[in-house]
Amino acid sequence: MKTETTIQGLTASLAPARTTKKLIGFVPTMGNLHEGHLTLVRAAKKICDVVVVSIFVNPIQFGAGEDFDSYPRTLEQDSRLLADVGCDIIFAPSVEQMYGKHPRLTNISVSQITNDLCGESRPGHFDGVAVVVTKLFNIVQPDYAFFGQKDYQQLAVIRQLVQDLNIPLEVIGVPIVRAADGLALSSRNGYLSEEERIAAPTIYQLLKQAEAALGEGQALSQVLANISIELTQVGFVVDYVEARQPNLQPIEQFDRDLVLFVAAKLGSTRLIDNLQIDFKI
Amino acid sequence: MKTETTIQGLTASLAPARTTKKLIGFVPTMGNLHEGHLTLVRAAKKICDVVVVSIFVNPIQFGAGEDFDSYPRTLEQDSRLLADVGCDIIFAPSVEQMYGKHPRLTNISVSQITNDLCGESRPGHFDGVAVVVTKLFNIVQPDYAFFGQKDYQQLAVIRQLVQDLNIPLEVIGVPIVRAADGLALSSRNGYLSEEERIAAPTIYQLLKQAEAALGEGQALSQVLANISIELTQVGFVVDYVEARQPNLQPIEQFDRDLVLFVAAKLGSTRLIDNLQIDFKI
Repeated sequence: MKTETTIQGLTASLAPARTTKKLIGFVPTMGNLHEGHLTLVRAAKKICDVVVVSIFVNPIQFGAGEDFDSYPRTLEQDSRLLADVGCDIIFAPSVEQMYGKHPRLTNISVSQITNDLCGESRPGHFDGVAVVVTKLFNIVQPDYAFFGQKDYQQLAVIRQLVQDLNIPLEVIGVPIVRAADGLALSSRNGYLSEEERIAAPTIYQLLKQAEAALGEGQALSQVLANISIELTQVGFVVDYVEARQPNLQPIEQFDRDLVLFVAAKLGSTRLIDNLQIDFKI
Repeated sequence: MKTETTIQGLTASLAPARTTKKLIGFVPTMGNLHEGHLTLVRAAKKICDVVVVSIFVNPIQFGAGEDFDSYPRTLEQDSRLLADVGCDIIFAPSVEQMYGKHPRLTNISVSQITNDLCGESRPGHFDGVAVVVTKLFNIVQPDYAFFGQKDYQQLAVIRQLVQDLNIPLEVIGVPIVRAADGLALSSRNGYLSEEERIAAPTIYQLLKQAEAALGEGQALSQVLANISIELTQVGFVVDYVEARQPNLQPIEQFDRDLVLFVAAKLGSTRLIDNLQIDFKI
């Protein structure tokens, strides 16, 4: 496994693979890797010859007062984990390497599907994601790119971006990896106190209860309200509890597949989760 | 020479060139080709193995009331001209092929350098250019892309876009091609009446006079004002007469290279031109 910190170095490392038409898989991350990330790498290894994992805490997707400075940087530990799952190349550029010395004037915005859910409380976040992902795609030029379904809205934004701009790669969404107690794995789980960590799986438990309640015919609005109420009771500050079509459009017909979304804060830690519900009519 | 009208067809046509690592040159146009475009193709032929010319009148770079509907579509004539200069592949997609059946939600904006000059009177124009050029770059995946310096601001926007998004290609700017009387070649010259065509070269004559006046030490503000006055006298409605640094930033020091820019209407036809002035100190 190689680690490259410059675009030039990465390009040189990838040149043999490109010349011999090897399939290149790409897993963009912000590091502080957990089993969720490693599952993305394993999925990439299954269908690609060469797997590149980027580790870059992207400043422009963090808002003022968010956790850019405190976001955990754990490159050594990440490298060991990536070596174990067969990652071929780590791309770990500096902020200067990614954004250069000249001011960036170009912005990319995906409208509509970024207006609500996480977009509402994190203005500019998805623009920052769209810009860095487009840059990384152009640097790595992979055949496949792998994203976790935990960041469901991010995945939808990237699919839309790739479709709208004809970016020549295929986006693969990989199911959420959960702890034994159901908590969706996230680097931000590391911020939780012991007590908060015990409360955190409530999100998933409530999502599963909601699925059952919907199956029994309970009204969607009631089900969503219940999640909010119960999260608040165990100490969460709820950002949103919403249902959408899988493509993030508003629900028009209740008897179709839908996705439940939750974002809520425990102390200063913001957690998100989602559950896709397939209706069998 | 092949003509492809679908992305799939173009991809198939380019596959052998890509496999054998041929250098691919790309000249994006809106068709109705003149000697200016053909000069771009010749420049591309000089350094590339395979040259792709796209012909696509891009709806999203035209504003309300602009000439999208009346913009000349002359594919047969264009094809003959391109065959003569050794173009390898014409890519002439439909609007549906480029923008698909699903609504586009992604926008690309380049700030600052699009705020004035043509950006001021054509709101959204450069966003439309940035989106279509990014899409075409992703479809063609060229090694080099060729743009005329007549659309100087557009060239600057595309250079910025390529730098900011790490688009893996080199942008080549090609000098303006002029008629014998100095008029910068443009598809829109075809809109001019006989009388207007006689007046049109005044723009270039005044730019050359301005260059001489600046060389003699006349004040820049005076020189710019004179261009405006004289254009108005011969029947132009002036949009702007401006001077900028070559990178489009405002002029801070007068003794450095600068570019003079003119946009003016003759009847309903909007003409633009520019002249780079190199100061030898």
